[in-house]
Amino acid sequence: MKKFVYGFNEGNLSLKHLLGGKGAGLAEMTSIGLPVPFGFTITTKASNEFIKQGNLLWDELKVEIFQHLAKLEEHTSKKFGGKKNPLFVSVRSGAVISMPGMMDTILNLGMNDETVVAIASLTNNECFAYDSYRRFIQMYADVVLGVAKYKFENVLSRVKLKNNISLDTDLSVDNLKKIVNEYKKIIVNETKISFPQDVKEQLLLAIEAVFKSWENPRAKIYRKINDIPDNLGTAVNIQSMVFGNIGKTSGTGVAFTRNPSTGEKKLFGEFLINAQGEDVVAGIRTPNRIEQLKDIMPKAYNEFQKIANKLEEHYKEMQDIEFTIENSKLYILQTRTGKRATAAAIKIAVDMVEEGLITQKEAIFKVEPTQLDQLLHPSFGKEELNKQKILTSALGASPGAATGKIFFNPQDAVNAYKSGEKVILVRQETSPEDIEGMSVSQGILTARGGMTSHAAVVGRGMGKCCIVGAGEIKIDEENKFFRVGEITVREGEKISLDGEKGNVYIGEIPTIEPELTADFDKFMSWADSFRKIRVRANADTPKDAKKSLDFGAEGIGLCRTEHMFFESNRIDSVREMILASDLEQRQQALNKLLPMQREDFIGIFKIMKELPVTVRLLDPPLHEFLPHSEKEIEELAKKLNVTHTKLKEIINSLLEVNPMLGHRGCRLAITYPEIYEMQVRAVMEAAVYVKKHENINVKPEIMVPLVGEVKEFQLIKKSIINIANEILEEEKYEIEYLIGTMIEVPRAALVADEIAKEAEFFSFGTNDLTQMTYGFSRDDAGAFIKEYINKKILENDPFQSIDQKGVGKLMEIAVQLVKKERPNLKIGICGEHAGEPKSIEFCKGLGLDYVSCSPYRVIVARLASAQAEAR
Amino acid sequence: MKKFVYGFNEGNLSLKHLLGGKGAGLAEMTSIGLPVPFGFTITTKASNEFIKQGNLLWDELKVEIFQHLAKLEEHTSKKFGGKKNPLFVSVRSGAVISMPGMMDTILNLGMNDETVVAIASLTNNECFAYDSYRRFIQMYADVVLGVAKYKFENVLSRVKLKNNISLDTDLSVDNLKKIVNEYKKIIVNETKISFPQDVKEQLLLAIEAVFKSWENPRAKIYRKINDIPDNLGTAVNIQSMVFGNIGKTSGTGVAFTRNPSTGEKKLFGEFLINAQGEDVVAGIRTPNRIEQLKDIMPKAYNEFQKIANKLEEHYKEMQDIEFTIENSKLYILQTRTGKRATAAAIKIAVDMVEEGLITQKEAIFKVEPTQLDQLLHPSFGKEELNKQKILTSALGASPGAATGKIFFNPQDAVNAYKSGEKVILVRQETSPEDIEGMSVSQGILTARGGMTSHAAVVGRGMGKCCIVGAGEIKIDEENKFFRVGEITVREGEKISLDGEKGNVYIGEIPTIEPELTADFDKFMSWADSFRKIRVRANADTPKDAKKSLDFGAEGIGLCRTEHMFFESNRIDSVREMILASDLEQRQQALNKLLPMQREDFIGIFKIMKELPVTVRLLDPPLHEFLPHSEKEIEELAKKLNVTHTKLKEIINSLLEVNPMLGHRGCRLAITYPEIYEMQVRAVMEAAVYVKKHENINVKPEIMVPLVGEVKEFQLIKKSIINIANEILEEEKYEIEYLIGTMIEVPRAALVADEIAKEAEFFSFGTNDLTQMTYGFSRDDAGAFIKEYINKKILENDPFQSIDQKGVGKLMEIAVQLVKKERPNLKIGICGEHAGEPKSIEFCKGLGLDYVSCSPYRVIVARLASAQAEAR
Repeated sequence: MKKFVYGFNEGNLSLKHLLGGKGAGLAEMTSIGLPVPFGFTITTKASNEFIKQGNLLWDELKVEIFQHLAKLEEHTSKKFGGKKNPLFVSVRSGAVISMPGMMDTILNLGMNDETVVAIASLTNNECFAYDSYRRFIQMYADVVLGVAKYKFENVLSRVKLKNNISLDTDLSVDNLKKIVNEYKKIIVNETKISFPQDVKEQLLLAIEAVFKSWENPRAKIYRKINDIPDNLGTAVNIQSMVFGNIGKTSGTGVAFTRNPSTGEKKLFGEFLINAQGEDVVAGIRTPNRIEQLKDIMPKAYNEFQKIANKLEEHYKEMQDIEFTIENSKLYILQTRTGKRATAAAIKIAVDMVEEGLITQKEAIFKVEPTQLDQLLHPSFGKEELNKQKILTSALGASPGAATGKIFFNPQDAVNAYKSGEKVILVRQETSPEDIEGMSVSQGILTARGGMTSHAAVVGRGMGKCCIVGAGEIKIDEENKFFRVGEITVREGEKISLDGEKGNVYIGEIPTIEPELTADFDKFMSWADSFRKIRVRANADTPKDAKKSLDFGAEGIGLCRTEHMFFESNRIDSVREMILASDLEQRQQALNKLLPMQREDFIGIFKIMKELPVTVRLLDPPLHEFLPHSEKEIEELAKKLNVTHTKLKEIINSLLEVNPMLGHRGCRLAITYPEIYEMQVRAVMEAAVYVKKHENINVKPEIMVPLVGEVKEFQLIKKSIINIANEILEEEKYEIEYLIGTMIEVPRAALVADEIAKEAEFFSFGTNDLTQMTYGFSRDDAGAFIKEYINKKILENDPFQSIDQKGVGKLMEIAVQLVKKERPNLKIGICGEHAGEPKSIEFCKGLGLDYVSCSPYRVIVARLASAQAEAR
Repeated sequence: MKKFVYGFNEGNLSLKHLLGGKGAGLAEMTSIGLPVPFGFTITTKASNEFIKQGNLLWDELKVEIFQHLAKLEEHTSKKFGGKKNPLFVSVRSGAVISMPGMMDTILNLGMNDETVVAIASLTNNECFAYDSYRRFIQMYADVVLGVAKYKFENVLSRVKLKNNISLDTDLSVDNLKKIVNEYKKIIVNETKISFPQDVKEQLLLAIEAVFKSWENPRAKIYRKINDIPDNLGTAVNIQSMVFGNIGKTSGTGVAFTRNPSTGEKKLFGEFLINAQGEDVVAGIRTPNRIEQLKDIMPKAYNEFQKIANKLEEHYKEMQDIEFTIENSKLYILQTRTGKRATAAAIKIAVDMVEEGLITQKEAIFKVEPTQLDQLLHPSFGKEELNKQKILTSALGASPGAATGKIFFNPQDAVNAYKSGEKVILVRQETSPEDIEGMSVSQGILTARGGMTSHAAVVGRGMGKCCIVGAGEIKIDEENKFFRVGEITVREGEKISLDGEKGNVYIGEIPTIEPELTADFDKFMSWADSFRKIRVRANADTPKDAKKSLDFGAEGIGLCRTEHMFFESNRIDSVREMILASDLEQRQQALNKLLPMQREDFIGIFKIMKELPVTVRLLDPPLHEFLPHSEKEIEELAKKLNVTHTKLKEIINSLLEVNPMLGHRGCRLAITYPEIYEMQVRAVMEAAVYVKKHENINVKPEIMVPLVGEVKEFQLIKKSIINIANEILEEEKYEIEYLIGTMIEVPRAALVADEIAKEAEFFSFGTNDLTQMTYGFSRDDAGAFIKEYINKKILENDPFQSIDQKGVGKLMEIAVQLVKKERPNLKIGICGEHAGEPKSIEFCKGLGLDYVSCSPYRVIVARLASAQAEAR
């Protein structure tokens, strides 16, 4: 005969597929000798069999259930339906994968007109007894008999109103008895049968209800959406009830084995004497701190401390434990891994290694990589935040907390900043011209854009709190206010941004500044020891380079040369270069830019020393550098000595319908080779300078963007080599430099073998690759991506986590083609995904050599890579 | 011993790899008994060996050469370097693949101070003799001795100036002798050696020069660019000279075996008595028509006619033959396949089948598919065209010829058309709003855009002459003129467009209207008999559908429902729908559109009868339908009863940075499901209507655009089925319909197996697929694609011919994934490539079921598919 029922003493965690998550957890605790209220689990196999039998409990199963019920009676010395010391049980579903939409819990099963009297006299608490009975009838009627809840609630309200009572707990015994009677009447009216007094009937019907709930529509849909097989089935747990509200020697509480805020190794939690679990949560009575249990019930406290230690040793994790004390006897009802703040997680991990509880390798899994971000940015205190009302929610594009006065254009922001204000920049969307305004702001809020829009990318790069795609905000940049529904917020008024959650608040909220600890350093050094994949940073300036090094970057994987072009002292020369009417004029403008660009690289090379620095040559379309407002055009026209009309004509002729797919990247170098020539000259002259004056062997890696066809790369590579040779021969220095390319156009991935013949390194540009593979413009997709995620069409925003099926497949194709052609080619990734743990794990699987992310994500990437490799 | 030299009597065409193209051709003609001036070929292997030997002719080779030279002397009864009847030869390179950049030809080799006297006396023509000598010295000095040409030309100019002579042919014998002497002096001055009088030395040095020219930089670069292996080598042909200018019984000419303009089976060509080949070309003397040779030299004529027949029989092709008559003896110097007009090509193919010369299968290869386009469009007469000066050249996006008055906006164009003018629309670029203006125009000219820009696609769809991307044209739409350099053309002035070549002319050029013949029908029916791949048309209106059927389309592969939205009587409802502030308003507007859209489909279904009609649901982003000019916004605001500011705000909020990658295609249906619901309702109601009233079993295929993820398709498919079921159940009719999707986003190709589980057909949308795979916006890439082609980075415009390496690879991946998942899934292509022969052949190779192109390309596609399958 098949076994369909397991006592809690017969299982453990490894039987999760059979006992469900909850059942296996209870069995595991029982198996290590913890005082768990005894009970048994009906297996998931029984659930499948139940369906096969046409939604009926078959006789053999019933026999097995009652055999286990008998054992439970024996174990508890109580009698199910007994008139003296009655046994009550809870009935709970317990699927293998936790699943909403199913029947959850029936408590106090076994109550009837007789056992309620028995428990009342036993506990000397009629109120408790009849309140429990009332609750049981309602719960049972709802989930087993299908009688709508509101019918019971109406009765309750009526009685309270009549007796002028506001809280349930103020109901008298008489009130409760009346309610119980009315509840029974409702059941007769609705179902044409009486509320079952037979406790065995109660039990069997409850079990049936759990099994049936596996097939209810909500549960089915949930399984479909989450790819949970229909034949997994659910288990049913029947557990004896214990009561913490029988008197002064009873109680209930919740405690962490360590402090979840600080990580300190000391019990942390609270309890209530003579109370039930829900009373602790309800907050009607003020709970005691767990330490106080030591004085009140020293024996129970000592036992609890021992159990806490035992559970930590067993699970090798800080635990969050629910307990009940019934007549001085301690019961453990549940334990699970405790949630904790990042700083605490790090301290706990380090402490546990030093206590000999876990290994360093285990330790690095105790912190979620993305949590680390919290440590680097200001945050709002939790309590402060709870007081605030959210004005609107959008995409939290860069974490941190910011409070300041709002301004609607970068110039106003800069002016306010100069007069000492804390500033938040609010824009329809940002563009490269806004850089200065962004850099002086505490935070950035845009109405448009997605996770890789300009504001998002630059915000993360600067480590600056940023919220994007806040479509509810209607901005009037001209009149300097925005509106959300009826609320208007004007220039100079204060708002606060939570860049992690994407929430916008009105008014000021105090922020807490970040701090890194010695534990943090120790923890990260362990992580690094498991890591082979290198972590670089995307850094465009000496300042960013310095920050990257502080965060442990092992090189620069992306230095965007165009960010340097926007500085106010050079944008004019850039514009002159773009608007040049012939090669000679363009060359003149480039000659002005050369020394500035060389200085940039000298600055970065000096900081990065002998670490590799990947310099990406000019990427954006030229029109991005041109002015757009009439006023700016007017000014520029004067400087360049052309008419306003003429200038506007040129600017218009450069505009593009789809700039993302336009004249940019290496395409610029095909039509204007002299631009890259200047940039390469600046890189190589800087390298020689640093070698000459500082004796540093700089390692520049020159990266050509947007290559889709090997012949593009060949042509440009040749020109790079010519310039480099010219400089090195003239200066008589050797510089080790590489010439490589980004793989960011789908075609590049498809012909990666051809490109690999020519390139000395590859770097996946997964931002563009995602845009083109999906056909999602990062600037426009914000309008519908949220809806895609809501409707479960997309699991994640593909700009945040690599779409492994599509974009990832292209990457895989590229890597395979490369491995065949040139197995040792260095391959990295420098898209925004390079700082996201799931994507990093994917990159590790592909065998990439490095990931390069914004400086503030370097730490996340270090831990995520370490975990991916240690796994 | 290896054989390195072949007499013309030792080879044939199959030895092309060894003898090169020219050598093999000469041998072939010799082998079928034609009177070819005898000679021999030094093989390509010798060329490789020459390089191995360090660029030296080795002794064994020299021996072999002179053995063959001896045979040549014997054959011609002339003596190389002989003082009585001297033999002269030409020396020509002849690579396997014809290749510019190499030494081409040296004529008259063997001339020296003695042989020139001999030939002068033999021909009784001292002028001819010394002129030939002069030319030989110059050619030889240039290509063998490396003396710059201009030095010789200086001498020639000086002598002519001094003697007041303007034409070379007016030089006297004395002049020529003087020139010969001066030429020799130049050689001594430049090379420190005398011009070689030893004819064998002349020969060996010339052969060396040919071999060396294989390695010259221009030839090397050409090979690299065109992927020609360096080790192919070149052959050298040494052929005895024959002269048509020895007297009245000599002559030279060129003739086609049939009339290249009409196809009539009759010799067509011209000749000159006592002349050399170049005289015919030079046009100084008026040549005789070939028929006149019958009277002048009947024997030679008859022989020529026989040879012409023989050559046609041998090559199974109409031939273009060069001949020379030396002392009444006919020599054939060259024959090649004759170029002909399309109508002629068709007549010749049909005639040849009826003459029994070729099979039907061979016949269908006698016409280039793209040539067929000529038959459907007006054209300019060749002579007319030769008189015109080209104003500017750009991309010929849609063939045909157009003449008319220019207008700069669609409204002006429509007005002029209504008052009876022939109109040409000149625009910066066109947009969907311009449709009406485009449809009344003879032709369209735009300053921007590429081969798949809006103007190009719509132009081809309408069969209307269209030139795009004319960047040299600076348009001032406001003031209604354009400028090219110094030339200004104003509204109402006439221009002419050649849509095939992409040329723009000032003024009117008469056009010739197209006409299809009975031969054409016969020819196409043969083609169809070899074709399995189906040809459908992209047609959006009943009118287009009718045209498609006329051209032989077997269904509609792409009916773009949005084109219908622009008609003036419905654009308001479309805009109302877009600007609706809630679902109810949107539904109201859609309810107005439903009957109109239903009428469209009824019209199309009636015409297409039981042929499949693929209806693509709404694709473009909604902002494309909104007005842009202030005036139109004002008008619309009034109609909708909102403020101008409010309307503009909404319009602006819908604008996108990269609309191509924005909120369009099925993404619209995810956010606004009611739009597709209306469209599906219109399709199904129309199908039921046509079934009910005409008893036609319509075959609608509903196509969802821009799917990138199977869940998008699932969601929309479900909604389509719901609507369809609702209608069919209510009406109690059965309609066979399919639900499929376009594969146009790279990701769709990468997850094609998943999508194939749900979709009932696939259609590759290669326009978008190309845009996204390359990252080239079709609207913007015009700015640099020409430069890419000029710089040989791209071989073709990938929007014209499928990029097989990249885009094609994605298609291949998709097809392979589908074949694994659902081998019988119908797959087609409906991008612009579907009408391009190379792309069609590629699609055939992939095993696609159908191609769908614009109506005017259906004929091209039918022939191209037939060829691809018969091949």
